[in-house]
Amino acid sequence: MGLETLFAPERVAVVGATERDGSVGRAVMENLLGTFDGETVPVNPNADAVLGVETVADLTEVGDVDLAVVVVPPSIAIDVVEQAGEEGIENVVVITAGFGETGSEGAARERELREVAERYGLNLVGPNSLGVIATGVGMNATFGPDMALDGSISFMSQSGAFITAVLDWANDRGIGFRDVVSLGNKAVLDERDFVRAWGDDPDTDVVLGYLEGIGEGRAFVDAAREVTQDTPIVLVKSGRTEAGAHAAASHTGTIAGSEAAYEAGLDQAGVLRAENVQELFDSAEALAGQPLPEADDVAVVTNAGGPGVMATDAVGDAGLSLASFSQDTLDQLGEELPETANIYNPVDVIGDADVDRFAAAIDTVLSDPGVGAACIVSCPVAVLTFDELAEVIVEQQAKHGKPVAVCFMGGDSARDAQETLNAAGIPAYFDPARAIRSLDALREYRDISTREYDPAAEYDDVDPDAVREILEEAADRGETRIGVEAMDLLSAYGIPVPDGAVVDSPDEARAVAERIDGDVVMKVVSPDILHKSDIGGVRVGVPDDEVAATYDDLVQRARTYQPDAHIIGVQVQEMLDLDAGVETIVGINRDPQFGPLVLFGLGGIFVEVLEDTTVRVAPLSEREASEMIDDVQAAPLLRGARGRDPVEESAVVETIGRLSQLATDFPAILELDVNPLVATPDGATAVDVRLTIDPDEL
Amino acid sequence: MGLETLFAPERVAVVGATERDGSVGRAVMENLLGTFDGETVPVNPNADAVLGVETVADLTEVGDVDLAVVVVPPSIAIDVVEQAGEEGIENVVVITAGFGETGSEGAARERELREVAERYGLNLVGPNSLGVIATGVGMNATFGPDMALDGSISFMSQSGAFITAVLDWANDRGIGFRDVVSLGNKAVLDERDFVRAWGDDPDTDVVLGYLEGIGEGRAFVDAAREVTQDTPIVLVKSGRTEAGAHAAASHTGTIAGSEAAYEAGLDQAGVLRAENVQELFDSAEALAGQPLPEADDVAVVTNAGGPGVMATDAVGDAGLSLASFSQDTLDQLGEELPETANIYNPVDVIGDADVDRFAAAIDTVLSDPGVGAACIVSCPVAVLTFDELAEVIVEQQAKHGKPVAVCFMGGDSARDAQETLNAAGIPAYFDPARAIRSLDALREYRDISTREYDPAAEYDDVDPDAVREILEEAADRGETRIGVEAMDLLSAYGIPVPDGAVVDSPDEARAVAERIDGDVVMKVVSPDILHKSDIGGVRVGVPDDEVAATYDDLVQRARTYQPDAHIIGVQVQEMLDLDAGVETIVGINRDPQFGPLVLFGLGGIFVEVLEDTTVRVAPLSEREASEMIDDVQAAPLLRGARGRDPVEESAVVETIGRLSQLATDFPAILELDVNPLVATPDGATAVDVRLTIDPDEL
Repeated sequence: MGLETLFAPERVAVVGATERDGSVGRAVMENLLGTFDGETVPVNPNADAVLGVETVADLTEVGDVDLAVVVVPPSIAIDVVEQAGEEGIENVVVITAGFGETGSEGAARERELREVAERYGLNLVGPNSLGVIATGVGMNATFGPDMALDGSISFMSQSGAFITAVLDWANDRGIGFRDVVSLGNKAVLDERDFVRAWGDDPDTDVVLGYLEGIGEGRAFVDAAREVTQDTPIVLVKSGRTEAGAHAAASHTGTIAGSEAAYEAGLDQAGVLRAENVQELFDSAEALAGQPLPEADDVAVVTNAGGPGVMATDAVGDAGLSLASFSQDTLDQLGEELPETANIYNPVDVIGDADVDRFAAAIDTVLSDPGVGAACIVSCPVAVLTFDELAEVIVEQQAKHGKPVAVCFMGGDSARDAQETLNAAGIPAYFDPARAIRSLDALREYRDISTREYDPAAEYDDVDPDAVREILEEAADRGETRIGVEAMDLLSAYGIPVPDGAVVDSPDEARAVAERIDGDVVMKVVSPDILHKSDIGGVRVGVPDDEVAATYDDLVQRARTYQPDAHIIGVQVQEMLDLDAGVETIVGINRDPQFGPLVLFGLGGIFVEVLEDTTVRVAPLSEREASEMIDDVQAAPLLRGARGRDPVEESAVVETIGRLSQLATDFPAILELDVNPLVATPDGATAVDVRLTIDPDEL
Repeated sequence: MGLETLFAPERVAVVGATERDGSVGRAVMENLLGTFDGETVPVNPNADAVLGVETVADLTEVGDVDLAVVVVPPSIAIDVVEQAGEEGIENVVVITAGFGETGSEGAARERELREVAERYGLNLVGPNSLGVIATGVGMNATFGPDMALDGSISFMSQSGAFITAVLDWANDRGIGFRDVVSLGNKAVLDERDFVRAWGDDPDTDVVLGYLEGIGEGRAFVDAAREVTQDTPIVLVKSGRTEAGAHAAASHTGTIAGSEAAYEAGLDQAGVLRAENVQELFDSAEALAGQPLPEADDVAVVTNAGGPGVMATDAVGDAGLSLASFSQDTLDQLGEELPETANIYNPVDVIGDADVDRFAAAIDTVLSDPGVGAACIVSCPVAVLTFDELAEVIVEQQAKHGKPVAVCFMGGDSARDAQETLNAAGIPAYFDPARAIRSLDALREYRDISTREYDPAAEYDDVDPDAVREILEEAADRGETRIGVEAMDLLSAYGIPVPDGAVVDSPDEARAVAERIDGDVVMKVVSPDILHKSDIGGVRVGVPDDEVAATYDDLVQRARTYQPDAHIIGVQVQEMLDLDAGVETIVGINRDPQFGPLVLFGLGGIFVEVLEDTTVRVAPLSEREASEMIDDVQAAPLLRGARGRDPVEESAVVETIGRLSQLATDFPAILELDVNPLVATPDGATAVDVRLTIDPDEL
């Protein structure tokens, strides 16, 4: 069921409405009676009327309503919700607190609430919610002090207090909203539902959110990815740092996923991530008010050199570039500006420029087809008021349809002018860096909206049955860790491994070695011995005629080292020329929120010392796998740095894709490390593997 | 001569004073007649009085003045300055433009101006300056529209327009200043002079600056370093990015140094560097108003969970940590707060907290000896006004003397409260991240003020004469590049090199090889052949009996490759076991502003692919050299990562120190690369060297 009627109800019931001073029930009633276009029905068996409106005793008597707002005590809230379900009410906002946020009893109550809501297919917001605002119908179904102004930003927050703070501030700044939702405990409806609903809403231009956790990460990625093709999503996901994650967990009771998973997941979802409140709203204002730039090249027009340099620095810090003007533009500026002006970007119209000179320069640079966006900078000067310049900027922006941001470097004297600009959707700040960053948010979202998402990599030539057999055999042996003996598991998913086998007798060992061209590598195989090299359990370059004796020696060493170790046998493996390749690491991991993750990095010091690795949420496309390689700093080493032949990158990409498929197919694989995956100019080969399984997921 | 009389004059002359509407001369007069405690004397031979004040014809008639402000046309400005010098006037502010900023003629005029000023030992500000403000004597000797409010921040700016912008905004925000200087073209007085003067001024608490370039980098480092022990300096140095540097150069006409040099130099100077205007003033407000924290551990007290998490994230982003409270504190909070509150950091007093509960919690956490600073966060709630909470915070901050920052998450409703806090020197913002960052600025400056600066590393056992001889020989040969033949130059400065010599006959080669234990490395030596290995000009592991033949072969190859190459001979060198060590790179470079720089990094991929290097301005102490090693990401590889023996780090440090001394002693060395310097557990040895010299500096 869509959420249209939640945000555009005609009749709303307030269950628990009351006139008691300072009560939530009164606050909700007052807010609804304030500006709501529809009808508000107070539900209270103990009063005839609330604030002059006739009550009904309970929801069975209320008739057709689209939304029930529940403010009764937690002990009876579930019954009320059940009644709403029975009466066919589609939407319920549970403001009542005392659920999952208060300990195990509350958590049990919340589970019950969810069951009831799911039984009736209710759109349930909360519990423990501040409520919902929908400016489209003038509805303030919250107990907060402020109604939102009209606008095109839809906003959800996991913190109700943050909504009251934002409205207090936004009303002051003239920033309006379409819908505002306090998510509360997210027992039923969560960020994914609202992202989808707002993605379908033609009157929502930007989706904003403050989240402390995301429930089902992968599903959110898929939902958000679709929405962000047309509608930008900007999120503050708090709990980014270790301390913050701990604080978020104790605040909301949710288990936070890892920051790396959030970073990867939100990026894959096309979500713009704001680090703080200022960034969140600066991005939102730009996205709601300005068109997207067709080019990254920014023109700066200033009446003061220094601030022009500051803006230029900010262009360099951002993903933008300073436009190089066409000769036509330079000629035109040359005619319009005095000799002491600078016609090159940043254009300095100098301090004695009046509004006409400024306007001419803005018009000229915005006419240059190479200019994607403009930043206009002005200091207070005697010959020009900020107000008249603001008018000109609004005109020029409308004329050219290119995004513009403004830096008016004044205090009180700039206030009205900034409001004029904001009213026209043009961001305006004191700080040049902030103006440029809002242009950069537009650029970033343009890149997202033009992204092409390929389907997840899927290979037909995989053998899940073989993998299942290996995993089940290990589980049957009571083992949760599997080492080199699982090379066959990689083979089953089409990942090249060196020729070889795990054998359990000297004769078999010799037979395998004879089949292999050249000397072999031999490793003792035991789930109980993790660091084989340390006990001399690995031999490199064993010639055929020493294989049998080496077998006995390796087993003997293992037994001496750890008499009770379970020794599966010895791996006999083709010897690869490691010097010809680059050692990489590919792995699988699991996040509590996002599920399977795939990891990539270069081996050795790059992982261990420099921590130069990257992560994606699986499943992923080959395009995404390929971007993982771009992500690591050491990528040039795969691409022919220092005179080496470049490796066959597509083979590494394919291996990542196949592991992504494996991770998705087998939730029982908790962790898997292919270390190293040796990449050469001819391909990529997995030389060693280690994995941890959860037998319960088999 | 100090600058005391510049900032506290009793009599000021305005040369070029006039009543003409819109003129600079009138604006300066009006500003001075406004609030200046002293006497203002207009100088104008063509008027009897200006704005009601009797004029004098020229400076010979003016009597005792401490400061002459010059606004006459550039053609006569120099004569006026000369007259000021003759009359014994100490300070001159040249507002007149049309000097170095306008091309070669102006540049010549500026040189003349400097010569005159230096001849008379004048303190000259400008030319092309907006002027000077000194609130201590109510003096506004600028032609800008605004006077500054009283305060303890002294501010210099290379952009006059930026000063007008800052004053417009700061007056509105209630931010005051001590002295304000528009540096103009810095013909005589520059940032270094003002930093020193304000460092000595007991009424300046913070020095702020907007600079586009720093004249004599090393001298600035030394001056600033001394000042920052007691007085914080915060600078925006613009032109950080390539585009910005280009814009700054075309704006001011100065050659910008490299960003790497600025970054190193300002860091070595103990300067806090702000990236943008907001950071500049946020840091300034905190430093001017709050004490320094004795511990990095921050307590967060909030009435809303979500914003508390945001603040905690910001703590994690900064160089701060979240305080762990003592048991006493937890017990006390347990008594003061309701059960649903969170007594662990971030402390959540919850939304129904009145001002007394909030105050108790703030008092308790600030009493915890482990807490270094506090951040108080409040959303708008019905039971509490921002105003009453602000009073409490001011009281508690004063009581405990620990730094506090505030986040009041409201719009209009928080404005007065923020002003109350600002008036008490407490930073207050909407955004929790911004509040935390101001605490972090205090932490950062505390670390700077407690820094110990050792004298530059200086070694007695160096032989400058030997170095000079090598450099002169090369210069005599007309060469500007020297290769391995300069190993002796390193030896002369006490840097270990492998045993060996450059020889010019097979016999000599054999003699050297016989002196050396084991096989040798042989390399052809020619300034014309840069890539010796490519032409087979290097042989490794040559046994004694092949040395003579190898000599002939190497020379033959060189001649075949490049018949006209000047071949100096062949280097015969002891063979080092490179596998036992880690290859590092140490180098010297020269920056147009900062002079000699020393560079350090690990060799090979670390420099070439990962660009993992660090730079310092020379000369540097061993402590600074040692910090260079900490700076590189790959440092763990020197410290025993991956099971290797750690190298003798002190040997690397000493080599850096000796190169710093070499760079300082010989300006003729433009560039020098020791590549590699092989670091082993027993020491560090320079295996190869290459340098570029400027014979004119010899």
